[in-house]
Amino acid sequence: MQDVRFWSGEPCFDIAHLAHVELLTPALDESVRFFVDILGMTVSARRGNSVYLRGWDDYAHHTLKLTAGPVAAMEHFAFRTSSPEALERRVAALERSGLGLGWIEGDEGHGPAYRFRTPDGHIVEVLWEVDWYQPTPETRPALKNQASRFPARGCNVRRLDHINLFAVDVRASRLALQDYLGLRLTEIIIFDDGSEKGSWVTSNNKGYEVAITEDATGTPGRFHHVCYAVDTREEVLRAADIMLESGVRIEYGPHKHAIQQTVFLYVYEPGGHRVEIGCPGARLVLAPDWKPVVWSQEERKRGQAWGLPTVATFHTYGTPPV
Amino acid sequence: MQDVRFWSGEPCFDIAHLAHVELLTPALDESVRFFVDILGMTVSARRGNSVYLRGWDDYAHHTLKLTAGPVAAMEHFAFRTSSPEALERRVAALERSGLGLGWIEGDEGHGPAYRFRTPDGHIVEVLWEVDWYQPTPETRPALKNQASRFPARGCNVRRLDHINLFAVDVRASRLALQDYLGLRLTEIIIFDDGSEKGSWVTSNNKGYEVAITEDATGTPGRFHHVCYAVDTREEVLRAADIMLESGVRIEYGPHKHAIQQTVFLYVYEPGGHRVEIGCPGARLVLAPDWKPVVWSQEERKRGQAWGLPTVATFHTYGTPPV
Amino acid sequence: MQDVRFWSGEPCFDIAHLAHVELLTPALDESVRFFVDILGMTVSARRGNSVYLRGWDDYAHHTLKLTAGPVAAMEHFAFRTSSPEALERRVAALERSGLGLGWIEGDEGHGPAYRFRTPDGHIVEVLWEVDWYQPTPETRPALKNQASRFPARGCNVRRLDHINLFAVDVRASRLALQDYLGLRLTEIIIFDDGSEKGSWVTSNNKGYEVAITEDATGTPGRFHHVCYAVDTREEVLRAADIMLESGVRIEYGPHKHAIQQTVFLYVYEPGGHRVEIGCPGARLVLAPDWKPVVWSQEERKRGQAWGLPTVATFHTYGTPPV
Amino acid sequence: MQDVRFWSGEPCFDIAHLAHVELLTPALDESVRFFVDILGMTVSARRGNSVYLRGWDDYAHHTLKLTAGPVAAMEHFAFRTSSPEALERRVAALERSGLGLGWIEGDEGHGPAYRFRTPDGHIVEVLWEVDWYQPTPETRPALKNQASRFPARGCNVRRLDHINLFAVDVRASRLALQDYLGLRLTEIIIFDDGSEKGSWVTSNNKGYEVAITEDATGTPGRFHHVCYAVDTREEVLRAADIMLESGVRIEYGPHKHAIQQTVFLYVYEPGGHRVEIGCPGARLVLAPDWKPVVWSQEERKRGQAWGLPTVATFHTYGTPPV
Repeated sequence: MQDVRFWSGEPCFDIAHLAHVELLTPALDESVRFFVDILGMTVSARRGNSVYLRGWDDYAHHTLKLTAGPVAAMEHFAFRTSSPEALERRVAALERSGLGLGWIEGDEGHGPAYRFRTPDGHIVEVLWEVDWYQPTPETRPALKNQASRFPARGCNVRRLDHINLFAVDVRASRLALQDYLGLRLTEIIIFDDGSEKGSWVTSNNKGYEVAITEDATGTPGRFHHVCYAVDTREEVLRAADIMLESGVRIEYGPHKHAIQQTVFLYVYEPGGHRVEIGCPGARLVLAPDWKPVVWSQEERKRGQAWGLPTVATFHTYGTPPV
Repeated sequence: MQDVRFWSGEPCFDIAHLAHVELLTPALDESVRFFVDILGMTVSARRGNSVYLRGWDDYAHHTLKLTAGPVAAMEHFAFRTSSPEALERRVAALERSGLGLGWIEGDEGHGPAYRFRTPDGHIVEVLWEVDWYQPTPETRPALKNQASRFPARGCNVRRLDHINLFAVDVRASRLALQDYLGLRLTEIIIFDDGSEKGSWVTSNNKGYEVAITEDATGTPGRFHHVCYAVDTREEVLRAADIMLESGVRIEYGPHKHAIQQTVFLYVYEPGGHRVEIGCPGARLVLAPDWKPVVWSQEERKRGQAWGLPTVATFHTYGTPPV
Repeated sequence: MQDVRFWSGEPCFDIAHLAHVELLTPALDESVRFFVDILGMTVSARRGNSVYLRGWDDYAHHTLKLTAGPVAAMEHFAFRTSSPEALERRVAALERSGLGLGWIEGDEGHGPAYRFRTPDGHIVEVLWEVDWYQPTPETRPALKNQASRFPARGCNVRRLDHINLFAVDVRASRLALQDYLGLRLTEIIIFDDGSEKGSWVTSNNKGYEVAITEDATGTPGRFHHVCYAVDTREEVLRAADIMLESGVRIEYGPHKHAIQQTVFLYVYEPGGHRVEIGCPGARLVLAPDWKPVVWSQEERKRGQAWGLPTVATFHTYGTPPV
Repeated sequence: MQDVRFWSGEPCFDIAHLAHVELLTPALDESVRFFVDILGMTVSARRGNSVYLRGWDDYAHHTLKLTAGPVAAMEHFAFRTSSPEALERRVAALERSGLGLGWIEGDEGHGPAYRFRTPDGHIVEVLWEVDWYQPTPETRPALKNQASRFPARGCNVRRLDHINLFAVDVRASRLALQDYLGLRLTEIIIFDDGSEKGSWVTSNNKGYEVAITEDATGTPGRFHHVCYAVDTREEVLRAADIMLESGVRIEYGPHKHAIQQTVFLYVYEPGGHRVEIGCPGARLVLAPDWKPVVWSQEERKRGQAWGLPTVATFHTYGTPPV
């Protein structure tokens, strides 16, 4: 467990935060309706086969891009750096890593981005230039320190919280994010045989921005879920009520994770992606010398915080489905 | 408003977080009882005339030090750096600033600290070495990613959130924190005559860790309040119920601040200090290019978020009282 | 205080609950939009100049009837009896009272109703026959023990909670409701000179269904407010957020009443009526020998539960405005 | 289903509410500590081998009596009538029923009570005379419309909500409560073969005060659980946190029942009884012509509201254990 460290090397603050995720969906219209009507997000833009969305307190143009595709899959996700110089440093590191794929010109809502591939095959972008969301008369907030108006619709999700990757080799992908992007490891599952079953990494004071968990099907590069945050645990319960009323299948929860203590609800959006409505509360990782919390095989047998066993599909269902 | 910038210079991550505050109280025993029985904090240590306390998810040995004194006053507060090297850099900057006071050996729970004085006269420490809280059998948490056991007592405050300084010259003290410590300015009140009435600065993703507001009595170097965070707004209301039952005077709230949107409750502890129980919810400042939100004189006339006028004592009552 | 009794005579269960209220509004369309979009109610029917509405868990066809009128006023409110026989008994008592006005044929959603006038001049109906709300495909709930689907829109008010009458003679109107309808008195304000300033009466386990408070303008028969209930105090705070975003004027709150302990938010709907979003929580008056809680002049000086003074308009603003 | 009626005969209001329950426990001291320290209840009196307890807003001397016994069992539970005359009427009906056992003199906190036996063998008392709880200086509430001070300890349960009986013949016991006490049936489970698997009855506006469910072990007269109410669903989640921290075994939940929609948490107290912390929210059954909600075998297969399957022990574990 020599490599189980909060910081992979020197403290590094080059990555500011998880910026967005692009999901391919075979049911674009239904997926958009799900995120808008049920989750309470708003559409920032439409271009070609893509729709750009955000939660009411996401400051950026979008945090979710939905694109029509033949099958549900995560096309890429992105991190924003802390400065233009930080982007240069990260690109240099990635180029040395052998994982680099090169630059793209940009997209709606952001400028040039450097792409790389995780050892498991997920596409990741790092970028600096981002358009701030400009409220319309309908979305202008009453308080100007808020990105846009509280929608009072559906689950009213506040902001992108984190994503969860499926990986065949959790350790390799986790180390890549630590070594080349400077992310910090906050919690980890290591089984008795030394295998790394899950890792939670972050670039800031959130407990995690990317979770990587083992794909029991052995398929590389798949996606587990995206999570949008609400302020209270009560809102997670309310989300469950709304899913029930809307006929959306609840896979798991509401309950509280032992790891990271997020109160969660997992559902499937119409395109097939797993989506979490989660509440981190006021929990933050502020310590600059946090020791990664290592969960053993024995400890993970206890299920989630309040005793619910982990649902079997959590280890096998991802997108694209296999 | 040339100096109204998120970062004073280059992005700087040398300060990790607000670490602790030391309050002098003329009623030490009653103050300890207030923080333990009513706020739900626990005592980590007692030494001489001082008692060291923390909230159940504060990772450090203590975040509050109460010391017997002739009159209520804030003796000092402290920031923890991101690394030993970051501490060296900050000390070098402070020594150049002319505000430096020099090193102290340390205290219960932390190692050597460098002291300086804000332009208004508040004593501040920066330090790296900190003891992590070691739970006792009574305070050991069920989940090992939590600093200690949820107390199920009183207001159950989770962690130190922020402090509010009173200042005669808000701008000078704010710039000192930005220029020498690298803190970021997230919100600010500037009146029509250009005077800076309040500033909110942070070293991390919290919206603020230090607020500085103008002392209408013109007395330099006073203290406004310390705030401990709870997870939900409901817990702030429950805190109000508990204050009512306990005969603790509620000065202001529960209500929601327009600035930073914290749901707040202000009370007086037995020594005379103003204490806030506050809920930041899931709100974070993640943008590395946040533009400080500037509130005008006209806008501040509207009172707090839901319309409550600011209580008059907010501009005049601080510790030590005058 | 000889007449300050929970039961005016023998225990009487002839009235089951507050059934509905009809409000005249000079801005019908805007009022409907307020109750539908902001409060989250649904329209059951429209007839002539009237629109019938209900909260998502109101079992009846409607609990609110909005009718276009030249000025905001409460046209009438209604109680439902426990049985047809109970209706006959109440009508017999009302006919003896000298307050009776006679039968009306019925209205959308209910059958014949007997009308009477309170001593202060408010029109009241008692009735038995009521149509249960029949959900449409859009409003059909997932759980069949719920009146209709949770709307996930605006404040999501659950059900009619209570109304507040303004009266010149609080005692006379309160006694009429106790003597002829058999309502129970749970709380009361009596000033040092013996004058009754407010009374709270109920027909069931709710702490109150009708509040009667003194109209300081001396105008008889006016209306103070109607209250719709939400499940949690957090939802009252959320309602305040929504009012702020919607530009709806908050008159008072959120805060907690000392009397009845309701957590409240008071706003004005576009027609001019005061509307409360209130949370009674799990509080019930179950004791069959409850002793009315008598609040003195001195006690009322303390303001509401957490210390907020009663807003001045609470004693003078009613509908119709004077 | 001829007998599936809300009212068994004419509307009857003779029973006011569920009054108390006496539980025998083989671990009296530990059971008392559980209800005091973890649930947040207070002790009103101790007499012989019995301890009398209540929640902070229970108006009566006690709602729970714990008595040392060789094995966990429910000794009896009690209803309070609406008046002395109502008690006479109920006793007369019970004497005619053949289920009557006769009068007992009374107990700490209440006067004479008439005892009867349900067809399944549970002992039930009906009584009128009850002592109101008299607060001590330590338990005196700040607001006099509240039974006692909010404890700010453990789960802070507010009041007795309901009990759940196990029965071999659900229908027989349910009809006895309807026919002789005048309780109302609000919800019921009837399987395809016509067998009644569960019934929920009430004497007031609460959705239920007594649930009767089938004991799959075929043992007559056992007890399923007692439930204490909290105000919010968040408090149920907090209770789960507290159980986790206290090492109390969570059997089931937190989740939301489909039937009655109570948000629940089931745990075992040290004596072996199942205890629920439940949140009914603002839900009330106000309709005097409520139609009992009939759940079919097919519908019950869907599990609880948000999809959690019913835990197997729910059909077999009761007290005394078999």
